[in-house]
Amino acid sequence: AALAAAREDEEEKELRQRFMAPPVSGLRELRRRRRELRSRMELLIMETQAEMCRALAALDPGASFTVDSWERKEGGGGISCVLQDGEVFEKAGVNVSVVSGLLSEEAARQMRSRGKSLKAKDGKLPFCAMGVSSVIHPKNPHVPTMHFNYRYFEIEEADGTKQWWFGGGTDLTPTYLNEEDAIHFHKTLKEACDKHDLKLYPKFKKWCDDYFYIKHRGERRGIGGIFFDDMDSPSKEEVFQFVKSCAKAVVPCYIPIVKKHCHDSFTPEEKLWQQLRRGRYVEFNLLYDRGTKFGLLTPGSRIESILMSLPLTARWEYMHNPPESSKEAEILEVLRNPKDWVH
Amino acid sequence: AALAAAREDEEEKELRQRFMAPPVSGLRELRRRRRELRSRMELLIMETQAEMCRALAALDPGASFTVDSWERKEGGGGISCVLQDGEVFEKAGVNVSVVSGLLSEEAARQMRSRGKSLKAKDGKLPFCAMGVSSVIHPKNPHVPTMHFNYRYFEIEEADGTKQWWFGGGTDLTPTYLNEEDAIHFHKTLKEACDKHDLKLYPKFKKWCDDYFYIKHRGERRGIGGIFFDDMDSPSKEEVFQFVKSCAKAVVPCYIPIVKKHCHDSFTPEEKLWQQLRRGRYVEFNLLYDRGTKFGLLTPGSRIESILMSLPLTARWEYMHNPPESSKEAEILEVLRNPKDWVH
Repeated sequence: AALAAAREDEEEKELRQRFMAPPVSGLRELRRRRRELRSRMELLIMETQAEMCRALAALDPGASFTVDSWERKEGGGGISCVLQDGEVFEKAGVNVSVVSGLLSEEAARQMRSRGKSLKAKDGKLPFCAMGVSSVIHPKNPHVPTMHFNYRYFEIEEADGTKQWWFGGGTDLTPTYLNEEDAIHFHKTLKEACDKHDLKLYPKFKKWCDDYFYIKHRGERRGIGGIFFDDMDSPSKEEVFQFVKSCAKAVVPCYIPIVKKHCHDSFTPEEKLWQQLRRGRYVEFNLLYDRGTKFGLLTPGSRIESILMSLPLTARWEYMHNPPESSKEAEILEVLRNPKDWVH
Repeated sequence: AALAAAREDEEEKELRQRFMAPPVSGLRELRRRRRELRSRMELLIMETQAEMCRALAALDPGASFTVDSWERKEGGGGISCVLQDGEVFEKAGVNVSVVSGLLSEEAARQMRSRGKSLKAKDGKLPFCAMGVSSVIHPKNPHVPTMHFNYRYFEIEEADGTKQWWFGGGTDLTPTYLNEEDAIHFHKTLKEACDKHDLKLYPKFKKWCDDYFYIKHRGERRGIGGIFFDDMDSPSKEEVFQFVKSCAKAVVPCYIPIVKKHCHDSFTPEEKLWQQLRRGRYVEFNLLYDRGTKFGLLTPGSRIESILMSLPLTARWEYMHNPPESSKEAEILEVLRNPKDWVH
């Protein structure tokens, strides 16, 4: 009994050190089924959340993360970490969710639009979905906004077949273009991809440019990165290893850029342009983002965690057109015609 | 010839006095087919635009409306009047559009979701749509945001049948509840409805509460007003007369409220609550509003005129919950459980 208590203390200590909160499935349960992929993925998303939160908090010493653990009555839950109105970050959210239950027909339709044809029983599909997702909106207009999301799905069809796939991506949304930063960001992602397959980066870079397209504006949300969905080959293990490399690249691709620019001086005009770009960010997320739509349609989903991606402040001006050859026009040009940042 | 020139001068003068810009169909063409309903509707929406713009400009003497006439290459055009960053109004837009051409299948599907089943030829339907639409976002948090829209559709099916219907509504979105204002607003609308049929106000008041529901928040965008769509009975003439009464009620239902509160003092906390409510306004318009979706899907539509409805500034705070019994909780209660303001 003393041994068991000592082990529990030890576990408690490890948990406090490694994660922002106890994992949704429980540490002991995760240990018990440690060889299963969903357990390894849950540990990976918990680690990614903690690494990111610590790296961000270190840059914004006055502020701290609010940590909310929540349960979903239909099954599962999540941990939302949000830092709001700091010195460096206007709003930084890193969210983990591990949910399971039955998928509604409406939600299944959203899935199908991603290219999966699923045979449901009575219009309901048992599913398990987990992921880490984050949006970082800094205060300084010279520090770009960053988003990443890595997720894993299991879904059971009417005949008992289990489908599984991974999805994810990391992308950058600067207010002003800095070529050196753009190259560093894309290069770091390319290196993570290249360890697994040289074909991945070019494919997922293009997918990212296509996915974050704001059709009615004719421009992309940001300068891209990587994006992928429905990834289920060559094997579960190999895709997991690839996702792990991507998740490990999140901190090194973004944090150096924040460090470099968070003390840059800026003008009120630059802040205003940032606010207008934030408006476009909101347009993309509410009108086009499939993750947001899927989340809002999932019964029992936590609205505050889904809409955490919205910036603290945004602005819409009627007929705002930056002058030709301005720094504002420079970034618009890249958002309209994406560039290859690494070859 | 001298007589014709004199008449043209006279027309030119009348036009300058009555409207914000020359009507899309041309004044002479409107005179020629003056007995047709679409001509009378176009004149009504032009008059409504001018009345509203003049009433707003009179309250904000330092600011002035930007008037943009635009053409749609697929047919028709519009006139957008926008006042931005004034003393009283943060953003006030009054937009007229008169468009015609072929409806895409995607846009037709949006139509069908409003309850119309339409038989298309080669997936395309000839249509004509016109309307006046307006959103007024004042600076002072004690002055509510107001929206109205009155529109007329004609659509030709594969067999040559012409369908027509009217739609519209006027609704109020206060940051803080003022019961006297809510009663004045609803009473003015009820009086306009009651002149035509006593059943209209109760029906359209409920429709308004249902339409402006932000499902994921469990609250309405505002405290309602009236809303209707697909209105095609008892007759074209009678529905037009009803729409005319509603359009004439726009100024008297809103302008007295602006006058009453535009010099009220307010605190930074009240301004902040207004900004958070503006965030919800954006959520409704981008996630749920059928007019916005329909507009963004219509080929050749003018994006700046459609998104003119978005506020100049908005804010999203993670987990903002006003304290019980606060003025903020008071308005939330009414947004969650709509009230009958007139009996």
